[in-house]
Amino acid sequence: MADVRKQWLDLVNKYMLQPDGPANDRFWVPELETCSRDRIKDIQEEKLLLCVKFLYECSPFYREKFKKAKLHPSDIKSLKDLPKIPITTKTEMVEDVKVNPPWGTYTTVNEEIWSRRGWMMFATSGTTAAPRAFRHTLHDRDIWAWNDARAMWAMGIRPGDIALIAFGYAPHVFFWGVHYALNLMGVPIIPRGSLDTRRTCMFINTFKPTILGATPSYALYLGDVMKEMGYDPAQSSIRIIITGGEPGATIAATKRRTEALWNCELHEFYGCTEASQTAGGYTCQYQVTQKDGPVCDHLTEDIQIWETVDPVTMEPVPLGKPGLSVVTNLFSEAAPLARFLIGDYTVLNYDPCPCGRTHALAVGGFYGRADDMLNIRGITMFPTAIEEAIRGFAEVGDEFQIVVSQEKMLDVLTIVAEPRPDVPEKDYPKLAKRIQDAVRLMVEIRPNVDLKPYGTLPKTEIKAKRVFDQRKLG
Amino acid sequence: MADVRKQWLDLVNKYMLQPDGPANDRFWVPELETCSRDRIKDIQEEKLLLCVKFLYECSPFYREKFKKAKLHPSDIKSLKDLPKIPITTKTEMVEDVKVNPPWGTYTTVNEEIWSRRGWMMFATSGTTAAPRAFRHTLHDRDIWAWNDARAMWAMGIRPGDIALIAFGYAPHVFFWGVHYALNLMGVPIIPRGSLDTRRTCMFINTFKPTILGATPSYALYLGDVMKEMGYDPAQSSIRIIITGGEPGATIAATKRRTEALWNCELHEFYGCTEASQTAGGYTCQYQVTQKDGPVCDHLTEDIQIWETVDPVTMEPVPLGKPGLSVVTNLFSEAAPLARFLIGDYTVLNYDPCPCGRTHALAVGGFYGRADDMLNIRGITMFPTAIEEAIRGFAEVGDEFQIVVSQEKMLDVLTIVAEPRPDVPEKDYPKLAKRIQDAVRLMVEIRPNVDLKPYGTLPKTEIKAKRVFDQRKLG
Repeated sequence: MADVRKQWLDLVNKYMLQPDGPANDRFWVPELETCSRDRIKDIQEEKLLLCVKFLYECSPFYREKFKKAKLHPSDIKSLKDLPKIPITTKTEMVEDVKVNPPWGTYTTVNEEIWSRRGWMMFATSGTTAAPRAFRHTLHDRDIWAWNDARAMWAMGIRPGDIALIAFGYAPHVFFWGVHYALNLMGVPIIPRGSLDTRRTCMFINTFKPTILGATPSYALYLGDVMKEMGYDPAQSSIRIIITGGEPGATIAATKRRTEALWNCELHEFYGCTEASQTAGGYTCQYQVTQKDGPVCDHLTEDIQIWETVDPVTMEPVPLGKPGLSVVTNLFSEAAPLARFLIGDYTVLNYDPCPCGRTHALAVGGFYGRADDMLNIRGITMFPTAIEEAIRGFAEVGDEFQIVVSQEKMLDVLTIVAEPRPDVPEKDYPKLAKRIQDAVRLMVEIRPNVDLKPYGTLPKTEIKAKRVFDQRKLG
Repeated sequence: MADVRKQWLDLVNKYMLQPDGPANDRFWVPELETCSRDRIKDIQEEKLLLCVKFLYECSPFYREKFKKAKLHPSDIKSLKDLPKIPITTKTEMVEDVKVNPPWGTYTTVNEEIWSRRGWMMFATSGTTAAPRAFRHTLHDRDIWAWNDARAMWAMGIRPGDIALIAFGYAPHVFFWGVHYALNLMGVPIIPRGSLDTRRTCMFINTFKPTILGATPSYALYLGDVMKEMGYDPAQSSIRIIITGGEPGATIAATKRRTEALWNCELHEFYGCTEASQTAGGYTCQYQVTQKDGPVCDHLTEDIQIWETVDPVTMEPVPLGKPGLSVVTNLFSEAAPLARFLIGDYTVLNYDPCPCGRTHALAVGGFYGRADDMLNIRGITMFPTAIEEAIRGFAEVGDEFQIVVSQEKMLDVLTIVAEPRPDVPEKDYPKLAKRIQDAVRLMVEIRPNVDLKPYGTLPKTEIKAKRVFDQRKLG
């Protein structure tokens, strides 16, 4: 058991090239980032075969899963055998933790490893449900930092930058890896932590950070507070905003709005607590500056295998077709999940990005988890599509709500939004009509539009809660 | 200029022994922690001579100060010449920042160094005044982590421990060094960050951390919320509380109260933003468990020189006499301050501690900054003495206020406190009388005692604001 762990860590470290700094000004690790697809597949295959053994020996959850599927690690002989491994869902992990509190059995980290080289515990957010906890080791920290540094190098972050990280530093995955990656890059940090928003604005104005780390919602909120305080965010020192927690750079209207507000480039990290704690996906400078197509996320394929599957059959979908994201982690000591269903929709594409990177692209990013999808009168839609429509109106503020209710037997979609203070109330009906049309164009359904005076809706600070599905209450 | 910086870092690194782990179960670095006073002085002297050159060449603030004093680095030939360097006060640093915003000129870190190997910016707290900022480098991070790990080893923190750090992770010095030190020790962390207090309690109950990091005020508050939620803090997994930001373990009644509430050992770190960002002082296991004398803080003399000076003349006081704390930092790349007046009262003692460590002890800890000292009717006193008296009453809750007002020409001291809910209101007068007597015994003045129903006073979460001197308003 100790043997396979050591073999696993040795293999992961073998491919952790350029651990201390970038190779050149374009790529942190050109050998990995620009290699051929065959080379990517070879690395994935070498790692997958050992990873499966490691999981079988060190993760009781996976051993059980393999046994149920009458699968033995020796049955995984090449990358082609990957689909033999049954997909793992969040529900299975929740059930496992219920039976085996508080940690569950999915992890390969036991009490002994945890107590000798533990790094940090992370937990799912939410205030009512029992938290689900994820323990990671110092090895995981190093590889997160390295991989996030690669991503930030692709975003164009360089020595001379100073990062203000507007992150609460609670035990949530989001931004802890980025924090250590900035350490690795020698990019100094001003950690916001519990600092209040007005003081954060004062710090931006006084100490001139060039990078802002925040959720997309908070970036908009912070810009608004800057204005209230008499600072112009577009004239500030911020030149790049890095986001996580929600889609940002891949929603065109949100991207335009944020970039105009701050006069900057908007980038995003993609991942989730369970499976992709370091940047699974990230935008490069080419993607966020091009004008001709959807913004795509790069996927780091030398440390993860990405698939898209059919939401019903869970079978891989053909290339170019939308499917749900599934990830196999090939880097973690603590949680090397195999075929975990993250569950966001995307389309994979293997064309090299004009930036020079050859790994898969998620076309248009990841647009909403399948379980966030709304079904209204039989029509399915993502809240992100509605966001895209609303954010297209410059005269509408950043806060909005999507309310779904039922009148008699009919589903009703209502958009609550706030015109900016300079829009006279007499113009509300005309604006409401235009919003109605724009949303209908996006999602086929004509919504009610309820415009409220600016400042009525609660301000979103961190992750936005925008969807209120009142049908479930009935 | 580059030369002396390199020489300085090389010298600091030469004495950074055992950078990766402890030498044995008692001492992280026995060669440094248990060495003779002569050896300590030799190390200090070697470092001081080079430090003075480094300051002269790289800190415009100190070059100016030296020139004004007609002092050249070559005038500092041995440790005996230390008093030739004029003392630096907080006021001088404030003035310097006013003239040279936003960083001031005290630091040896210029834009070039900062942009290539910056770590983090720290700032003084407070919501109205302009923040004063302190930049530190990756080198500083490593030495903070190492020194804080030495301190935590002395406190008895060991592999197998899990630390819940109830720290807001704002850009304040407090606990960032401890965080990285726990990483160095392989002690896993549950970072509280912006997590709410009730959820923090749930995490303690579910994930069983053994170490709690918090301000003394927050440790008491958290224990109370644990009780409200039906968890008994005395039965929890917490075995050691490490505190900073306010005196804790060295105030006997606060120590007894916290240790009884949590059934644990209470330890403290001592320092301040400007001068002693890593543990200047810390308690060892002997000090917090002995019953016979005041709890003393250890001072890390191989990386700092500690003096006590007369509050009026600023001349060194004789050994065994109380004086104000003055520190010379012999470890920092960014801020190696020479003879900085921290300004807390203490008594230095060079007797070896029974734990085996030979560095100076601050007898009874550091009891309040000179500028926090109250003068009431010509009698000077520290709020900590009043705290000691109040905390001695088990029937009184954790919150209290010290109000100083003026009636006609007379200063009036009022203690506002909250009897616990099980104290019947009819017993208030008797209790007030006993508190009056206890405070008078401590500070000579008979206060008014104003007892309010439990829960009336605002709950202190982080640093307590206890003194309300209304005379200054008049």
